[in-house]
Amino acid sequence: MRNVKMIIQYDGTRYNGWQKQNQKGSTVTTIQGKIENVLSKMTGEEVDVIGCGRTDSGVHVENYVANFFTDCKLTLDEMEKYLEEYLPKDIVVKELKIAKDRFHARYNVKGKTYVYRIDNNKYNNVFNRDFTNHIPIELNIEQMKKAAEYLIGTHDFKSFTSLKAKNNKSTLRTINYINIIKNNGLIEIEVNGNSFLLNMVRIIAGTLIEVGEGKLMAEDVETILMGKNREKAGHKAPAKGLILKELQY
Amino acid sequence: MRNVKMIIQYDGTRYNGWQKQNQKGSTVTTIQGKIENVLSKMTGEEVDVIGCGRTDSGVHVENYVANFFTDCKLTLDEMEKYLEEYLPKDIVVKELKIAKDRFHARYNVKGKTYVYRIDNNKYNNVFNRDFTNHIPIELNIEQMKKAAEYLIGTHDFKSFTSLKAKNNKSTLRTINYINIIKNNGLIEIEVNGNSFLLNMVRIIAGTLIEVGEGKLMAEDVETILMGKNREKAGHKAPAKGLILKELQY
Repeated sequence: MRNVKMIIQYDGTRYNGWQKQNQKGSTVTTIQGKIENVLSKMTGEEVDVIGCGRTDSGVHVENYVANFFTDCKLTLDEMEKYLEEYLPKDIVVKELKIAKDRFHARYNVKGKTYVYRIDNNKYNNVFNRDFTNHIPIELNIEQMKKAAEYLIGTHDFKSFTSLKAKNNKSTLRTINYINIIKNNGLIEIEVNGNSFLLNMVRIIAGTLIEVGEGKLMAEDVETILMGKNREKAGHKAPAKGLILKELQY
Repeated sequence: MRNVKMIIQYDGTRYNGWQKQNQKGSTVTTIQGKIENVLSKMTGEEVDVIGCGRTDSGVHVENYVANFFTDCKLTLDEMEKYLEEYLPKDIVVKELKIAKDRFHARYNVKGKTYVYRIDNNKYNNVFNRDFTNHIPIELNIEQMKKAAEYLIGTHDFKSFTSLKAKNNKSTLRTINYINIIKNNGLIEIEVNGNSFLLNMVRIIAGTLIEVGEGKLMAEDVETILMGKNREKAGHKAPAKGLILKELQY
């Protein structure tokens, strides 16, 4: 039995996120569901794809990592061709590789890099419109950078998650860096961390946007962090601006 | 009466090109048709929009120039807001300006810059898939550049147009430059000229692609040009890779 590692790219616009949903009679379309269907037809087996983590409905991925076990005798090249032919155009398998048996796409993740993209021009560029959050008011990048500094390091990010922690699960997380760059009116907020809470990057982006708009002060971010209360942070920025860029193993 | 100049950006995927088509009972959707509808509602007048030229069905535009005359009393800001609200998301008016009365978007064009984009990676990047022509085989850029040299200058481009010239119209045109660059697997063929024949850039792109694939030699382009025969040139490359980038006035 081979353990096949996949690097996948997808445009999340049409999907309810990565993770398949098994409610009876559900008509929900997910990336995992689509890929498992094609792999099951290809192999004649009931394939379970292990993904590196969930993604929200509408979120995009540049390099998603997943793996599956199979007895199928096809070569990797033949598998790639099959996947290219049968997957929709908004899901692409960039690479297939044989991994060690113990490789597990989710358990082995050491870090994730997300990019939140804002089209900060007066009009929303048509070629980017599905992959950016359009904000026509000029944002103050310097203030956003200052605000981001407060988030670097290990903190309790309870204010920055939609998760209602009932079961005392830790909301302690580590952010290694946040880079904010602006190029031709396109703002990219790159966030790297070991792991993230539900909606964490989108709430960080929403909070930084409010700083950029002048609705919040950079220093407020420290207070928000200390408050450990979701209501204190900014809004959850729209999913279409978020791209999971890369994973570290 | 004001002469309003517009800079428009559009994703041509859903449209049958720029130019409206007035066949009876036609259900064809064009950019010009969409914009005239919105402007007519906005002004209460029957607005005719003068465009800088036709674009093929499915071709995209970064900076299209058009103008229209109106007695409407709205400010340019109010017009911009109206257009943003009522135009579909794949057509964006980037700029409105008052032009001189004699300004005419088509008659005054001095030059056009087109970019033909090829995704030369093994897989077609999902974020670019509607705006690139995917060619998984590696193209020989050096040979393509050599071939392009033959096209620079003033030539009879009869081999490079779908136009069946019945009426002895001249097929003499001038190409000022062709730049070919490759970056992260994305090849951009930038073509600047004074004016272009029907499908000329797409047939140039198709011919250069065949040179890149090794199906044609760079030197063959000279023979093709001399032949003055459409059948000698390469294929017409798909519309979705073509973007009208800029106009010179």
